[in-house]
Amino acid sequence: MVKRGMRDVVVLESDISRIDGKKGELEYRGYSIHDLAENSSYEEIAFLLLRGHLPTQEELEEFERDLARRRNIAPEVIGLLSSLPDITHPMVVLRTAISYTGSMDEKLHVIEPEENLEKSKEILAMIPTIIAYAYRMRHGKQLVHPREDLGHAANFLYMLKGEEPTALEEKALDTDLILHAEHTLNASTFASRMAASTKSDMYAGIVSATGTLMGPLHGGASQAVIEMLKEIKESGEKPEEWIRRKLEAGELIPGFGHRVYETMDPRAKELKKLAWRLDKESESNLCSISERVEEFMIEEKGLYPNVDFYTATVYEDLGIPDDLFIPIFAMGRVAGWTAHLMDQYAENVLIRPKQDYVGEKEREYVLIEEREA
Amino acid sequence: MVKRGMRDVVVLESDISRIDGKKGELEYRGYSIHDLAENSSYEEIAFLLLRGHLPTQEELEEFERDLARRRNIAPEVIGLLSSLPDITHPMVVLRTAISYTGSMDEKLHVIEPEENLEKSKEILAMIPTIIAYAYRMRHGKQLVHPREDLGHAANFLYMLKGEEPTALEEKALDTDLILHAEHTLNASTFASRMAASTKSDMYAGIVSATGTLMGPLHGGASQAVIEMLKEIKESGEKPEEWIRRKLEAGELIPGFGHRVYETMDPRAKELKKLAWRLDKESESNLCSISERVEEFMIEEKGLYPNVDFYTATVYEDLGIPDDLFIPIFAMGRVAGWTAHLMDQYAENVLIRPKQDYVGEKEREYVLIEEREA
Repeated sequence: MVKRGMRDVVVLESDISRIDGKKGELEYRGYSIHDLAENSSYEEIAFLLLRGHLPTQEELEEFERDLARRRNIAPEVIGLLSSLPDITHPMVVLRTAISYTGSMDEKLHVIEPEENLEKSKEILAMIPTIIAYAYRMRHGKQLVHPREDLGHAANFLYMLKGEEPTALEEKALDTDLILHAEHTLNASTFASRMAASTKSDMYAGIVSATGTLMGPLHGGASQAVIEMLKEIKESGEKPEEWIRRKLEAGELIPGFGHRVYETMDPRAKELKKLAWRLDKESESNLCSISERVEEFMIEEKGLYPNVDFYTATVYEDLGIPDDLFIPIFAMGRVAGWTAHLMDQYAENVLIRPKQDYVGEKEREYVLIEEREA
Repeated sequence: MVKRGMRDVVVLESDISRIDGKKGELEYRGYSIHDLAENSSYEEIAFLLLRGHLPTQEELEEFERDLARRRNIAPEVIGLLSSLPDITHPMVVLRTAISYTGSMDEKLHVIEPEENLEKSKEILAMIPTIIAYAYRMRHGKQLVHPREDLGHAANFLYMLKGEEPTALEEKALDTDLILHAEHTLNASTFASRMAASTKSDMYAGIVSATGTLMGPLHGGASQAVIEMLKEIKESGEKPEEWIRRKLEAGELIPGFGHRVYETMDPRAKELKKLAWRLDKESESNLCSISERVEEFMIEEKGLYPNVDFYTATVYEDLGIPDDLFIPIFAMGRVAGWTAHLMDQYAENVLIRPKQDYVGEKEREYVLIEEREA
């Protein structure tokens, strides 16, 4: 039987995260995503995913300092960023810069647990800087260098905008990163494990993941959601009517449905709460539109919002430009990618699936002079 | 059941290539690899893989001209190559340069058949130039620019060494590229399809493939073979005794055995012929060592040489430096990668496999102040 899409093919055992699609549950290392979103920081979650347990206060502080110290990127990488054409998609920038950074790692080919952890922290810490630097360069703004006294999320917003975020903004992005940090064997995570399965280096794994995340069917949906919400707002139409019109024209509504959830995506629940908190302080007024779209889609189509749906409103209200939505997804998900890479290296088997050949066999070779058009 | 390595999981139907592992057969689009190696050129094979049929003389000439015209790479990419540190692995150079080139394509996100074919030709034509330029830069040599009047293989050797190859050298590399052009769902090819399955761009697919090919379990074996052969030669020991010693010490002998072949890899047969022809004109004398290693391994371990085994001798006798073995593998395989990418886009389903969760569930969250070390 041909397992196109591999929907039901179990390819490995893992203790990193667990999804119950029927109940709408998601756990990282056995902890409910709701507890983690409410109580932890992104650094704590990265530690949890990479090390397998929640850190003590002391462990967390050391880990935070370690990440903060690694935020500066090499001058060669800054040079690369400044040389990229302005039309470059920010995800292509990120992918190229990560690939390039691998070239400067003298221990590139060492794939032992301790070294993998070092590389994981290095990659985790550099991604926000690459995104923010590239953004400011593209818009002709002076670079804002990383600060070691800010948390992962706050430092990113500071580098992006040039001013410290409010407590609510920091909390919102931090929680958003937690909610994006890991999600079992999605396409990008599996792609990173594919690269590692040949014993290729960790940067190769992250480069594969970055390129794979970029697709509209994976990381690209939240950008499509915000474009839709803005269109609805500008149209002045009732959201329900706008959606009904699109559905009748056979169009897909982005941000709804998910291959593994049969009910509401638990991440969407948390993001909805964040979106409402942010929306009260902003003038975008997108939350009420979002909610009406959500209610209509559940009622009419039986489809629930996925992680991308309220992510769009959260990012918009944080003042994040549309084309950074996918890079920020990557900034969160890298914790899961690196955790999976470490597992793949630890118990590696080369991944090589099969195909069914359906073409003609044993064709007779005809010399080029005798071929007919 | 957990399908680690996915050895028996059929994930798609394909008419690009067919392997019969028991009989030791390989066909591209239904044509035996032996016929193709003997009678066709690499350009013909690239056409066959991308378009599905063998070209007429006219079609081939147009395709050759088309590829030749695309050999020059953008000044920005040359700038990138010159900025990479000298320690950079040539495969990291290739991966980064391809990722970067994507940034200059204004139709990056267009994934329609005609546009995919354009991108395939573009990528196919640029890879030899990237490899040769980077090699000459790393060794402080002046760049040798591509020539439109030479074939794909001859032009590469010319750019690499600064002089035109002999007819035998050209034929040897050309045939080697044919033999590496396609091989069903190996790890790198599947990785490229993974990226495409999210509707990410073609460059993302090739970047994933390049990074995945780099691993020692995939593209890296021929480099290990040449190092072994040189060691045997320098030791002055009888090849059989050298190998016996290694086997007794529990070491693996690179270049033997393949997951899908139970007999001799048909590509190895062709490469062996080439190796002997080249060896007669060189002073390396590696072929007789190779053959004695081969005979010993078949007799003692029942293991047959794979594609990597005689590739090593062929490259050595062509004067190709060891660290370009994997990039030249990529230079051949890119025809298969692009053919698979075009198929994936044409009948796309998102690839998302499953995992079995084996960790602890529903763990109780403990606030950080209360956690114990």
